[in-house]
Amino acid sequence: MTDRPKTVTAAVVIIGNEILSGRTKDQNLGFLAEALNEAGVQLRECRVVSDIEADIAGAVNELRARYDYVFTTGGIGPTHDDITADSIGAAFGLAVDHNPEAVAILQAHYTHTGAALNEARMRMARTPVGASLIENPISKAPGFLVENVFVLAGIPVVCQAMFHSLKHKLVGGDPVRSIAIAVHLAEGTLAKGLGALQEKYPEVDMGSYPFYRDGRFGASIVSRSQSVDRLEAAADEVRLMMRELGGEPIEEADSGD
Amino acid sequence: MTDRPKTVTAAVVIIGNEILSGRTKDQNLGFLAEALNEAGVQLRECRVVSDIEADIAGAVNELRARYDYVFTTGGIGPTHDDITADSIGAAFGLAVDHNPEAVAILQAHYTHTGAALNEARMRMARTPVGASLIENPISKAPGFLVENVFVLAGIPVVCQAMFHSLKHKLVGGDPVRSIAIAVHLAEGTLAKGLGALQEKYPEVDMGSYPFYRDGRFGASIVSRSQSVDRLEAAADEVRLMMRELGGEPIEEADSGD
Repeated sequence: MTDRPKTVTAAVVIIGNEILSGRTKDQNLGFLAEALNEAGVQLRECRVVSDIEADIAGAVNELRARYDYVFTTGGIGPTHDDITADSIGAAFGLAVDHNPEAVAILQAHYTHTGAALNEARMRMARTPVGASLIENPISKAPGFLVENVFVLAGIPVVCQAMFHSLKHKLVGGDPVRSIAIAVHLAEGTLAKGLGALQEKYPEVDMGSYPFYRDGRFGASIVSRSQSVDRLEAAADEVRLMMRELGGEPIEEADSGD
Repeated sequence: MTDRPKTVTAAVVIIGNEILSGRTKDQNLGFLAEALNEAGVQLRECRVVSDIEADIAGAVNELRARYDYVFTTGGIGPTHDDITADSIGAAFGLAVDHNPEAVAILQAHYTHTGAALNEARMRMARTPVGASLIENPISKAPGFLVENVFVLAGIPVVCQAMFHSLKHKLVGGDPVRSIAIAVHLAEGTLAKGLGALQEKYPEVDMGSYPFYRDGRFGASIVSRSQSVDRLEAAADEVRLMMRELGGEPIEEADSGD
């Protein structure tokens, strides 16, 4: 046994009435969950909040105190409903103003495209004072970082590009590995043996995820751990248990997360 | 002008490590957002929390005090990681025990299927004492209701079926109507005029949602209101503004939410 693995945690705040109205299906949570996991950062909580400054600031303040990193998505465009910069300023008690470096980026971009850098577009250069910028290779208007809070765009392609711009700044812990094994057995058949295995392997987080596919119920048993040895031992016992119960273990493609 | 429209609000709590790990992409938020909207209930917040009793109970207690209804999804199966019933009990300070009506449902079901109603399956009959049940026409194990908190399954098809079982219990407010109009203009071009329209129509919530499709940026302007008259007047002005700026308004299919 080595030292206790280092665990680094994060939360996501999705800002946008359009997600809560059902009009837009969020794609950023799934992306960030996977990308953070690859970076050795464990996503522990997500909140979807509406475009209300007090709600955004409140969520950010609760979560930045509790987790190592916070990522927000949405609300950094040029329109009146883009209030993320002001909300982050409110959360930190910082003034919000035009960021000279961001202004220079927008000036260069709009000189290139020929569009006017009007007052609305200049809103996209506003950050809390002292924020550092996150590069946006797609549409140029940058995200920004205040302490442990990363502020990203809501458009998925831009959110993803910004994440790739910032990920070298993240200090990850030991990665969590996973092994997912499905079986066409009911959860109620697996539950007792699985509960006993969870007790035997406290350093492995064992989850049971029922599914309904092709007209048949089944369950995926996902084991996750920062210890590869314990993970593999636990997964071997999961497979054995499935066979003893008359099921055939099916290795799932996303093992190794 | 009639009386101020009645507004009924809700929050969703998605329980499940599998969403936070990125392994499973949530489908319940989008469904509930739309279904609640149809029922005249406005979804105002969503939290995704991990399988930790204190986190689940904490989120439920914060949200049930703040919104008219709370819906949870996930964690009501037979395995060791299904801790929603205990967490809701903890949130309300209620004991959790086998619910006689739920036991009868499971007895009838497993007599029919021939599978054993073992101890693990009996876990699915546990509810906080005094909870009323929510019918599950798919796999029978019921959801339940404590005060204003509806506890639903995580499997999307079961979650959806349970929602249809409970929706007659919801007392909705005036529905929010929406009109969505897209245009191939940059948000930065639309922003000034749109901001002025938002000031002119304070009872209409006007959102701008940039998109990137077929290699072109554009924006959807979504106007939402409980007042149909004001909504239609605002949308007419949005279309006029788009044309004045050289864009062609494109009516989006999901108008009328």
